[in-house]
Amino acid sequence: MKDKISIVGAGLVGSLLAVILKQKGFEVQIFEKRKDPRKSVLTEGRSINLALSHRGIRPLKLAGVYETIAPYLIPMNGRMMHDQAGELTFQPYGKEGQFINSVSRAQLNELLVVSAEKAGVEVYFDHKCSDIDFESNSISFENRENIASDLIIGTDGAFSAIRKKLQFTDRFNFSQYYIEHGYKELAVEPLNDNFRLAPNYLHIWPRGNFMLIALPNNDKTFTCTLFFPFEGDPSFSSLKTKDEVDDFFSKYFKDAQELIPDLTDQFFYNPTSSLVTTKCEPWHKNRSILLGDAAHAIVPFYGQGMNSGFEDVRLFVEMAENMNWEWDKILPSYSSQRKKDADAISELALLNFIEMRDHVADPDFLRRKKLESQIQERYPKEWIPLYSMVTFSDIPYSEALRLGKIQKKVMDEVLTLEESEVNFEQIIERFNALKKGD
Amino acid sequence: MKDKISIVGAGLVGSLLAVILKQKGFEVQIFEKRKDPRKSVLTEGRSINLALSHRGIRPLKLAGVYETIAPYLIPMNGRMMHDQAGELTFQPYGKEGQFINSVSRAQLNELLVVSAEKAGVEVYFDHKCSDIDFESNSISFENRENIASDLIIGTDGAFSAIRKKLQFTDRFNFSQYYIEHGYKELAVEPLNDNFRLAPNYLHIWPRGNFMLIALPNNDKTFTCTLFFPFEGDPSFSSLKTKDEVDDFFSKYFKDAQELIPDLTDQFFYNPTSSLVTTKCEPWHKNRSILLGDAAHAIVPFYGQGMNSGFEDVRLFVEMAENMNWEWDKILPSYSSQRKKDADAISELALLNFIEMRDHVADPDFLRRKKLESQIQERYPKEWIPLYSMVTFSDIPYSEALRLGKIQKKVMDEVLTLEESEVNFEQIIERFNALKKGD
Repeated sequence: MKDKISIVGAGLVGSLLAVILKQKGFEVQIFEKRKDPRKSVLTEGRSINLALSHRGIRPLKLAGVYETIAPYLIPMNGRMMHDQAGELTFQPYGKEGQFINSVSRAQLNELLVVSAEKAGVEVYFDHKCSDIDFESNSISFENRENIASDLIIGTDGAFSAIRKKLQFTDRFNFSQYYIEHGYKELAVEPLNDNFRLAPNYLHIWPRGNFMLIALPNNDKTFTCTLFFPFEGDPSFSSLKTKDEVDDFFSKYFKDAQELIPDLTDQFFYNPTSSLVTTKCEPWHKNRSILLGDAAHAIVPFYGQGMNSGFEDVRLFVEMAENMNWEWDKILPSYSSQRKKDADAISELALLNFIEMRDHVADPDFLRRKKLESQIQERYPKEWIPLYSMVTFSDIPYSEALRLGKIQKKVMDEVLTLEESEVNFEQIIERFNALKKGD
Repeated sequence: MKDKISIVGAGLVGSLLAVILKQKGFEVQIFEKRKDPRKSVLTEGRSINLALSHRGIRPLKLAGVYETIAPYLIPMNGRMMHDQAGELTFQPYGKEGQFINSVSRAQLNELLVVSAEKAGVEVYFDHKCSDIDFESNSISFENRENIASDLIIGTDGAFSAIRKKLQFTDRFNFSQYYIEHGYKELAVEPLNDNFRLAPNYLHIWPRGNFMLIALPNNDKTFTCTLFFPFEGDPSFSSLKTKDEVDDFFSKYFKDAQELIPDLTDQFFYNPTSSLVTTKCEPWHKNRSILLGDAAHAIVPFYGQGMNSGFEDVRLFVEMAENMNWEWDKILPSYSSQRKKDADAISELALLNFIEMRDHVADPDFLRRKKLESQIQERYPKEWIPLYSMVTFSDIPYSEALRLGKIQKKVMDEVLTLEESEVNFEQIIERFNALKKGD
């Protein structure tokens, strides 16, 4: 069991995967096109903080690196919603004690790369993959020697070089779809060395077709992100002057505006980035396979991009171990089994954008959430709300999506009733009947 | 009005477009990566004959080249269906006198290139586009000088180099989707210098999940094409020996097998090709635009690949003329108006595969067709069957698709009735009511 495994991309998924495969006894090397982030400045324009939850934590524990990472996490217990008048409403994410964790992408990535190196993985920065030969399992790099391997794993993100190469092979299905919204990050500095908003929440300013969110960082700053259409009114295109930006924030995000004295400067200095969903199939060819964003890049609205990538790592390694590391059987088997779950979280992430920006402030939505938590209290094993299935469980995404649709159907029916008519036993019976029907 | 226009791709669409733009007074040049087909052997593996119909003929007439092409066309009046016992059933394509035309891709392409040269277009073969700069409107070629233009038009097919370059620009939506079937061409030679099947039909051997078709060529051969799954049983994968191929054809295509003495040799010698649908948006960037397959490659089952590409040419030039050749306005306007029709013919082509291979032999389908032609006889302006709207009219594809879905709904209702209960006036009233409802 001394197969040589080459991983392309030293991002979150590639680094974590390297740690685990090295621990399993393989010879593992990672090739990363960027320079070593420990020796250079960070790249701009990528989401700075992420929300780590159950599906991401489990493989971190499996790799034995969770303890190293835990000190850098900031728990977020739920959504803190800001209405236009500045009024706050709290909405827990799950049951008492359930939370998600704000974490800096850059810090987490660095911790994982260090863990990989400590585990004995060779990490080569400044190695840009220029070509790959799927027949000989060989990777070419700009100005470097070619590398042959027993297994090549592409964890090189939404714009994967390995996937790009696969795209031009016969019968490779592929799509890239950009939503009509982009995003812009805005930094909220600390005040008197303290957070300027309550830190243990994901703050949301839902405004229908657009929204602002804020996540805490462990240097006591917040990163605000405006999700906003590229075109139309209002949109990134329609806000052309500092006065227009000022007026826009005064109208929609008055309380946030007050936290960012240099808001208009940041607005015009910081980049506007786009949001893509990519799908492809098959994820493998011969002895090469894609994992994480390279296989299925999703929009960030369910906080599951990194978590689904880490879950890929766990499921891939578990399946490989069960199949006795026979890559020629594992690769097609993994691809075909995991694909439906990647498609499901992709759909869930797009749907959750509409929920976050539009529905969360809706009285009907709040009644629905309240009723759902009452059902869950009475039937904790039978009714797990969709958000909890996705965020706090290992239920396959495709099953969560299926059950979520049934829950929605049942709740639509329940919401036509008066409060006094609601019967929880009937609700759970109806749910179980529909659940079996499939 | 002396803008310099560069067209990339001297295929059917590019050559026809060049003729018309040259006639409008522009300086037009075409760059083609292949060698001049008049000086070299033909490329293999592409569909040899195509079905030219109304939407393709109209722009050929506009360009004044139809008379040159007409002698090379073979009319096909309808489908000639071959069942497993060799029994034949004829199904007309439209009304009396309506037909589609079998034409050789290679011959038509050569005629159009010659027409372009005669019109004064400069045609450069052996010019492979290696890069394009959308800001400076400049094309780079392998081992050639760069070319700057006022307008660049990519008519370089389903695997367009221009589109590939667009794919890696921000916010470009793109998908490529391969169906599970491939195709293989098989040649039927003449017998005693005559056609071996009746020439004025498109012959179909519908067999459920797969089918064989045959189109006449003007050298009295037929080109048979087997559309067949890549995997499963039976499939291209499952037929491994000459005996297996023989047995398969004996069982399903006995009468066709008898026309091809060297069938098994051809089966293993000729390539198996895949079938892709591509979609993208937007089709333009700055002063560059995609037309034809480069913008919207479709499967061949509606015989509309070339026809939709030629219609692109007509609509693009008509719009450009109406907008006084102001490219900066024309390009976004054309893209946004034509896109829905490209999506519609793409969907129709996929649906028609199921109809051709599976439904055409169905008694229910035949009754539906017969009833429809009776409705059309009585209400020729109000009820045009879907196939006729697509093949013999200029009705936008998206409108044809919409009306076709309404027709299907009405016919589904009618087919539950006894023959004696059918009332044509009621049918047309129901159709008109549903039509307005949208």
